[in-house]
Amino acid sequence: MKLWDKGFSVDQAIEKFTVGNDRELDMKLAEYDVLGNMAHARMLHSIGILSTDEVRDLLGELQNILGEIENGEFEIEAEFEDVHSKIEHLLTERVGDAGKKIHTARSRNDQVLVDLHLFAKAEIIHIKDHVDSLFELLQSLSEKHKDVLLPGYTHLQVAMPSSFGLWFGAYAESLVDDMHFLKAAYQVSNQNPLGSAAGYGSSFPINRTMTTDELGFETMRFNSVAAQMSRGKLEKSVSFALASLASTLGKLADDVCLYMSQNFDFIGFPKELTTGSSIMPHKQNPDVFELVRATANEIQALPQRLTLLTTNMTSGYHRDYQLLKEPFMKGIEQCREILMITHFMLENIIVKESVVHDSTYNYLFSVDALNKRVLAGATFREAYKELGMEIQSGNFEPDRAVKHTHEGSIGNLCTTEIAAKYHRVWDNVDA
Amino acid sequence: MKLWDKGFSVDQAIEKFTVGNDRELDMKLAEYDVLGNMAHARMLHSIGILSTDEVRDLLGELQNILGEIENGEFEIEAEFEDVHSKIEHLLTERVGDAGKKIHTARSRNDQVLVDLHLFAKAEIIHIKDHVDSLFELLQSLSEKHKDVLLPGYTHLQVAMPSSFGLWFGAYAESLVDDMHFLKAAYQVSNQNPLGSAAGYGSSFPINRTMTTDELGFETMRFNSVAAQMSRGKLEKSVSFALASLASTLGKLADDVCLYMSQNFDFIGFPKELTTGSSIMPHKQNPDVFELVRATANEIQALPQRLTLLTTNMTSGYHRDYQLLKEPFMKGIEQCREILMITHFMLENIIVKESVVHDSTYNYLFSVDALNKRVLAGATFREAYKELGMEIQSGNFEPDRAVKHTHEGSIGNLCTTEIAAKYHRVWDNVDA
Amino acid sequence: MKLWDKGFSVDQAIEKFTVGNDRELDMKLAEYDVLGNMAHARMLHSIGILSTDEVRDLLGELQNILGEIENGEFEIEAEFEDVHSKIEHLLTERVGDAGKKIHTARSRNDQVLVDLHLFAKAEIIHIKDHVDSLFELLQSLSEKHKDVLLPGYTHLQVAMPSSFGLWFGAYAESLVDDMHFLKAAYQVSNQNPLGSAAGYGSSFPINRTMTTDELGFETMRFNSVAAQMSRGKLEKSVSFALASLASTLGKLADDVCLYMSQNFDFIGFPKELTTGSSIMPHKQNPDVFELVRATANEIQALPQRLTLLTTNMTSGYHRDYQLLKEPFMKGIEQCREILMITHFMLENIIVKESVVHDSTYNYLFSVDALNKRVLAGATFREAYKELGMEIQSGNFEPDRAVKHTHEGSIGNLCTTEIAAKYHRVWDNVDA
Amino acid sequence: MKLWDKGFSVDQAIEKFTVGNDRELDMKLAEYDVLGNMAHARMLHSIGILSTDEVRDLLGELQNILGEIENGEFEIEAEFEDVHSKIEHLLTERVGDAGKKIHTARSRNDQVLVDLHLFAKAEIIHIKDHVDSLFELLQSLSEKHKDVLLPGYTHLQVAMPSSFGLWFGAYAESLVDDMHFLKAAYQVSNQNPLGSAAGYGSSFPINRTMTTDELGFETMRFNSVAAQMSRGKLEKSVSFALASLASTLGKLADDVCLYMSQNFDFIGFPKELTTGSSIMPHKQNPDVFELVRATANEIQALPQRLTLLTTNMTSGYHRDYQLLKEPFMKGIEQCREILMITHFMLENIIVKESVVHDSTYNYLFSVDALNKRVLAGATFREAYKELGMEIQSGNFEPDRAVKHTHEGSIGNLCTTEIAAKYHRVWDNVDA
Repeated sequence: MKLWDKGFSVDQAIEKFTVGNDRELDMKLAEYDVLGNMAHARMLHSIGILSTDEVRDLLGELQNILGEIENGEFEIEAEFEDVHSKIEHLLTERVGDAGKKIHTARSRNDQVLVDLHLFAKAEIIHIKDHVDSLFELLQSLSEKHKDVLLPGYTHLQVAMPSSFGLWFGAYAESLVDDMHFLKAAYQVSNQNPLGSAAGYGSSFPINRTMTTDELGFETMRFNSVAAQMSRGKLEKSVSFALASLASTLGKLADDVCLYMSQNFDFIGFPKELTTGSSIMPHKQNPDVFELVRATANEIQALPQRLTLLTTNMTSGYHRDYQLLKEPFMKGIEQCREILMITHFMLENIIVKESVVHDSTYNYLFSVDALNKRVLAGATFREAYKELGMEIQSGNFEPDRAVKHTHEGSIGNLCTTEIAAKYHRVWDNVDA
Repeated sequence: MKLWDKGFSVDQAIEKFTVGNDRELDMKLAEYDVLGNMAHARMLHSIGILSTDEVRDLLGELQNILGEIENGEFEIEAEFEDVHSKIEHLLTERVGDAGKKIHTARSRNDQVLVDLHLFAKAEIIHIKDHVDSLFELLQSLSEKHKDVLLPGYTHLQVAMPSSFGLWFGAYAESLVDDMHFLKAAYQVSNQNPLGSAAGYGSSFPINRTMTTDELGFETMRFNSVAAQMSRGKLEKSVSFALASLASTLGKLADDVCLYMSQNFDFIGFPKELTTGSSIMPHKQNPDVFELVRATANEIQALPQRLTLLTTNMTSGYHRDYQLLKEPFMKGIEQCREILMITHFMLENIIVKESVVHDSTYNYLFSVDALNKRVLAGATFREAYKELGMEIQSGNFEPDRAVKHTHEGSIGNLCTTEIAAKYHRVWDNVDA
Repeated sequence: MKLWDKGFSVDQAIEKFTVGNDRELDMKLAEYDVLGNMAHARMLHSIGILSTDEVRDLLGELQNILGEIENGEFEIEAEFEDVHSKIEHLLTERVGDAGKKIHTARSRNDQVLVDLHLFAKAEIIHIKDHVDSLFELLQSLSEKHKDVLLPGYTHLQVAMPSSFGLWFGAYAESLVDDMHFLKAAYQVSNQNPLGSAAGYGSSFPINRTMTTDELGFETMRFNSVAAQMSRGKLEKSVSFALASLASTLGKLADDVCLYMSQNFDFIGFPKELTTGSSIMPHKQNPDVFELVRATANEIQALPQRLTLLTTNMTSGYHRDYQLLKEPFMKGIEQCREILMITHFMLENIIVKESVVHDSTYNYLFSVDALNKRVLAGATFREAYKELGMEIQSGNFEPDRAVKHTHEGSIGNLCTTEIAAKYHRVWDNVDA
Repeated sequence: MKLWDKGFSVDQAIEKFTVGNDRELDMKLAEYDVLGNMAHARMLHSIGILSTDEVRDLLGELQNILGEIENGEFEIEAEFEDVHSKIEHLLTERVGDAGKKIHTARSRNDQVLVDLHLFAKAEIIHIKDHVDSLFELLQSLSEKHKDVLLPGYTHLQVAMPSSFGLWFGAYAESLVDDMHFLKAAYQVSNQNPLGSAAGYGSSFPINRTMTTDELGFETMRFNSVAAQMSRGKLEKSVSFALASLASTLGKLADDVCLYMSQNFDFIGFPKELTTGSSIMPHKQNPDVFELVRATANEIQALPQRLTLLTTNMTSGYHRDYQLLKEPFMKGIEQCREILMITHFMLENIIVKESVVHDSTYNYLFSVDALNKRVLAGATFREAYKELGMEIQSGNFEPDRAVKHTHEGSIGNLCTTEIAAKYHRVWDNVDA
């Protein structure tokens, strides 16, 4: 067929198009596929479909395969379409007919679903661990630099005094919201879909409660059609949580890029962590944070991508769903990556101590001056008029000694209370 | 300025552009703004900024305004920019100087934030109530029609037997996932932002714990900068939950539109609920469900819209955030609307009882026939070969008496277990 | 039905849900609907379906209705579902049976399609006019301020000398790209869909070439199914052009907001065009540009919204498409609005003349110093080493007299060439 | 650093994060980078910066590198950050100091920009060729099957007679709209950005008109800041065109999946092009078209992804833009892939000849029956009443001999006119 580029035959082209990079993606699912096989084998034994010998052989061999996966010896060669057929092939080759019987009462859709649920659960916990660490780091930076003032902006105009304590602490507290969504995604993934077969259940008397327990799921996706409908819904659920986290990380990165500009010069990083130029010695290109911000945007685009792949789709499996895998898995990986790199960079951040002493920031302190007069007994109107005149005439003397005391203000960061709130989020979850 | 359309003066044009339809949108926030004012007034009294007389007068007048809002007598006229200035104006007009003092130690950003949090909380509970009702209806439809079979499709190809029990029940169970996100959104909104002033706290010794209790928030957004950063983040959080719900409703609507086609003819609705034509008497246009589906898509676009308005934005208030209000409020309204209309339509759904008797669906039953022989002792290979030959030769006699027994299959819907799982989601929440 | 909010009856609720705000939106289509009616009437006369008297009466009355529309006397009352039924009602009421005959050989889908195509054409030309004016203004600002230098940034780090000439001129030239898309959208809309009936043509011997000429379309959407498929595709096409324009306006607005910050202070606006504070006299909140930026983001979200409404939809009309109208029309209006307001604001921009004299910007000029030595005969390596040492030792004396001469550089803005390129875009279009 | 997964050192992790898969992506830009180098070298010679010997050596070596690229011998090893540094390294290694001088008066941003513009131009032409072929195929299928009727649907309800002639022809004509956007994207890419250096021009007297001619660009991006602003804008422009095309292909695929369902059974494909099952011999899973549809959705998500990466970004380069490359390049590749595979599949499509003879479709013909009576002289009202009664009483005899004659109807497909319109789109473009 002359139209075809690159000299593929039609068969190869169709095979390439329909399989895509599924084999590569499936490598990340291999260990979960083995776990799913193990649970399914035990269950088939319990209902008399596999004999005691068969199940023993299968479990032994599945254990071997798990070892091969951990040691990097497992591969999905070009003759296999996916991880499921590769593992079934290995079992049949090594154990014989029992290897074929393990596919009784399930379908490939079933297997993808259970693999993805196990994968999502595990990855969410990894992400949670990274978030926990970042939260602690931000809180400790907040405490460490709590006395260093910063200009606070509204409309990007110099407005009110802020501090590094507030700034770092704000990003810590912002993670609380993200945690609520991460937990929601975890609970969505913590339901066993195995046993829905092709999406409508089967006539075999399988025991789904047993596989649910075996696989450590909190509950099951009962209704077989609902279990199948979780394809796409699971991925979107996780993507909402990732997008929530990414927006926090992206905003922090955006602040960092602004604060590193010579026009702000609030923070810095050791030379080896930025890019510079010897004839422009002032230059500190914040490449890492620009790429964190960009990656955060890619992650924030994820819900919409997955929505486009699944919207206006009737119930039941459609092959379209295969294309969910790559953006879903990549989004998870990117999220972990920017969590780690943000953590590392912040461990090395250099805080500039005397930013607000620049006269550019004199008016930062005018509102506090006004409030002081009001608290001392002046009416707001009098105080405002008096102060306005001082400012107009150039006689305003800013008092840079900020005394804010209320909960969540410069002088009262509530670090402990925020930590308590953060940790309450996952309190009732068995993770 | 000749370029300007429609004969506005420049001032009017700028005023129109910057205020937009904020007054109209703010009408939905009015009651929450009054509640925020009440809590703030009591707190100012507690720290000595308002006298006992002043707070009594203010609270009395705020109570009056609340009555006016409930009675539809409250308006935001063109001379006021928003609900906050209107209410402050009313207080000053009616109570005198105390009306001005109520703005001590807070800013407009503060007020918008607390209004939006209270609004979100209340609306989420309304939505939850609608979802609860729909869940119950779907479960009862599932039980009522559990014995009516349907063809189950994969790739839109006739594949396996399904049932109305499974179909209705699947949408009920699918709502469990949505509920996890709705709860997350509720918890994100259940944090008091009041007291963050312009986003950096203030020098007044305000008592934020007191306003948190007064307003019935579970906790507070402690850090003032974090409180300000919740603008946009709150709206996005709610939008994730709405989008999750919308995807369930949209998919159901999509199934309905397909099933009403003459080529399926699985369900119907009373004539008065569809659009027809007297010379095409077969036509039953499913307009309501097409519009539910389309509305669900608009709601699913919401996270991306709100993300575009907030991404790559440094911390601190930006006027851009004003444009969050309209899509956010409209999304909530649309979500309630499609929940109600879906509920109403499903109350009137007509289930076609003998769909699967059509010969188109004969092969639906071939897999069960195969499994039966396997369970009866044949090897899979023998059974498969035998059955394949029967089918090829036209001798296959489908047995339409489906006997599926496992959890979540046609014969075992687990309706009670699904209800228990559904209700567990909000168990630990004080809503 | 107790679930229903706000006391609507079910009928009202369904009517409200299905009609939505279509009446209001249709007011913008009214004049085009009349034009479509006129062309259709003349054509029906030409093929003998309307008599000479009938067509004369209809055209007379349609002319009257057009007058009423222009005078603001036309309304679509609650008893009419849309503009089409209202106009048909008026014709029947005023002209009698001929009013009913005008609906021969067409359907409502037909009418919406032709109205939307005519509307899109007209609106695109309005937008083009606004863009033309903005282009001219940007070019004249570029020439006027061509000698005023600005710091040029990469990674938000001070990098190379730039100028107001380059800055204004860049946004002018950027509009060229947007124009290519606006023209594409115009050509997509310049095809007559009238005559496709319900999307499959009809058995009447209508003359579509005649209506194409009558309505001033360049060509026709021939294939009836293709004509129907243009629903959604037309709107998306226009949205691509709007999004392209919006990204240019949004970026300009973003620059303006940054440049107005006290940390940059490159530009200003007269006090009456910004928001300030008497005790923070430095504050110039750029609200207008923040809202331009936000509106640009809403417009940039449009393609995705329209895509969600139309993707995974089989051919043929679906009622979902009704929901295209509001975002489509609002996007057009918003685009016109930000074009006009940007124009007005830029007419009043204040350029700060001596920004680069601040010592923050000394290193801006180091690359030119290097190049100068290279052009004078030094090897790059020598020159680089020498200059690096001067900078390290604090002996670098920046020469702020920039002499760039190549096409598109500070000293050679190519304003004329850019104008020529801009105007070539629409050269071959009959608009 | 204990947080880091997978045992990378910090340096490796940062290098991995910042470089990403740029090397791999850059392989697609290599030939264009060489062409850009050649043009730049000739220009530097023309202004006296390179000697005649130097330019000869450089051009010779660049020719060699081009050969290596074509032969698959070119690599970007881990020690190089990108294609630009690799090629500069090769030139320096092989030609000596002249290899370093070639970087005079340009920057890496410059090189990426020119590479991407050349790449985009070439890829758009490839895509255009694929679209041309698909257009021809669709037109020939339309002609070939023009007499085979199909049911036409509105609201997925059986509505009016259609035909394979209309159906295939509609997708051909729909490509005309896409072509307008592909042309716009081509013209956006047909502007030379080379010479903008880091985005602000340079002090070298370079000749950009010369490189514009050398590289075969129609015009130049004059303003250096505008040239830099094309980063992101170029990619988005192309993405609009890809998304437009993808929506056509996705809709066609969606129709195909529906039409292959047993409930429609309008078309088929040879067994080797679908997936089946021997015990469900009716099953023809349309995997290829499901994946075309899904891929089309991924492409339709592209504009939004690129918008998120670029919105709210001030002018000047940001490292974020590096992340534009992968989705941009992948989108192009996916678009080519689905064009080719759709073409191949349609070459093999099997049209079912007597679909409309099924009694399900009787009412398809009622509107024509009505029109016939009207054309024969009955008033619409009489004809409608009479026909309605026949239908109600079951006496309606459909006449399946459809006689539609107007432009774009079943009997008058206007294939030639559509071809002429299609080819006019690129008429004035020198491609």
